[in-house]
Amino acid sequence: MALNPQYEDIGKGFVQQYYALFDNPVQRANVINFYSTTDSFMTFEGLQIQGAPKIMEKLSSLTFQKITRVITAVDSQPMFDGGVLINVLGRLQCDEDPPHAYSQIFVLKPMGGTFFCAHDIFRLNIHNSV
Amino acid sequence: MALNPQYEDIGKGFVQQYYALFDNPVQRANVINFYSTTDSFMTFEGLQIQGAPKIMEKLSSLTFQKITRVITAVDSQPMFDGGVLINVLGRLQCDEDPPHAYSQIFVLKPMGGTFFCAHDIFRLNIHNSV
Repeated sequence: MALNPQYEDIGKGFVQQYYALFDNPVQRANVINFYSTTDSFMTFEGLQIQGAPKIMEKLSSLTFQKITRVITAVDSQPMFDGGVLINVLGRLQCDEDPPHAYSQIFVLKPMGGTFFCAHDIFRLNIHNSV
Repeated sequence: MALNPQYEDIGKGFVQQYYALFDNPVQRANVINFYSTTDSFMTFEGLQIQGAPKIMEKLSSLTFQKITRVITAVDSQPMFDGGVLINVLGRLQCDEDPPHAYSQIFVLKPMGGTFFCAHDIFRLNIHNSV
């Protein structure tokens, strides 16, 4: 595999597609299709989980309905296995909670002409955590 | 290659070692040894750079002397090529500037019994950028 010259578009496209599903309570469960049954890692607020079934269990436990999200930066880099590393910074507000800054990192790996999300690290409230 | 079960210690150890050099103006230039001449990517405040010489040029242009750094979270994940993905969140203050929240992602790749830093994404001031 080699560097994918489209890494920037792939990163931006994935982020848009992922959050379009995630932020819609009716569609949220469909983000599971981005993860591998065994080979995806998620770290959610410091809690580490492996594999789509456990990731889904975690995401299903999130009870908010409405998300207002503002993305402030998406930085992508190509990886030598054809994957893409993506860093997202933004702010989100769940239901009537106060807005929080957040950070989310994705690593996409190529698989059969498309990509799956091999790594996902999410941290909320990053500027209040000091 | 397979998952490295020591990923947590490798991540924490790297972050400690990297910042010990970076935060010391006399030692800062030595961080260059973590990067590959050709195969390392850095995105510094949205600016993308490839290869140790250009990364060094960027880091050499930073004029501050004193850094006060507080790390608030280090999340590491093992990668299937034996590498480690690391997300660092923290706050830093350069000289007499006001303190800023920051985010830095590293991807370490195994090479000859040790690791090099293949990916580095840095963003400062993350909670003011909305």
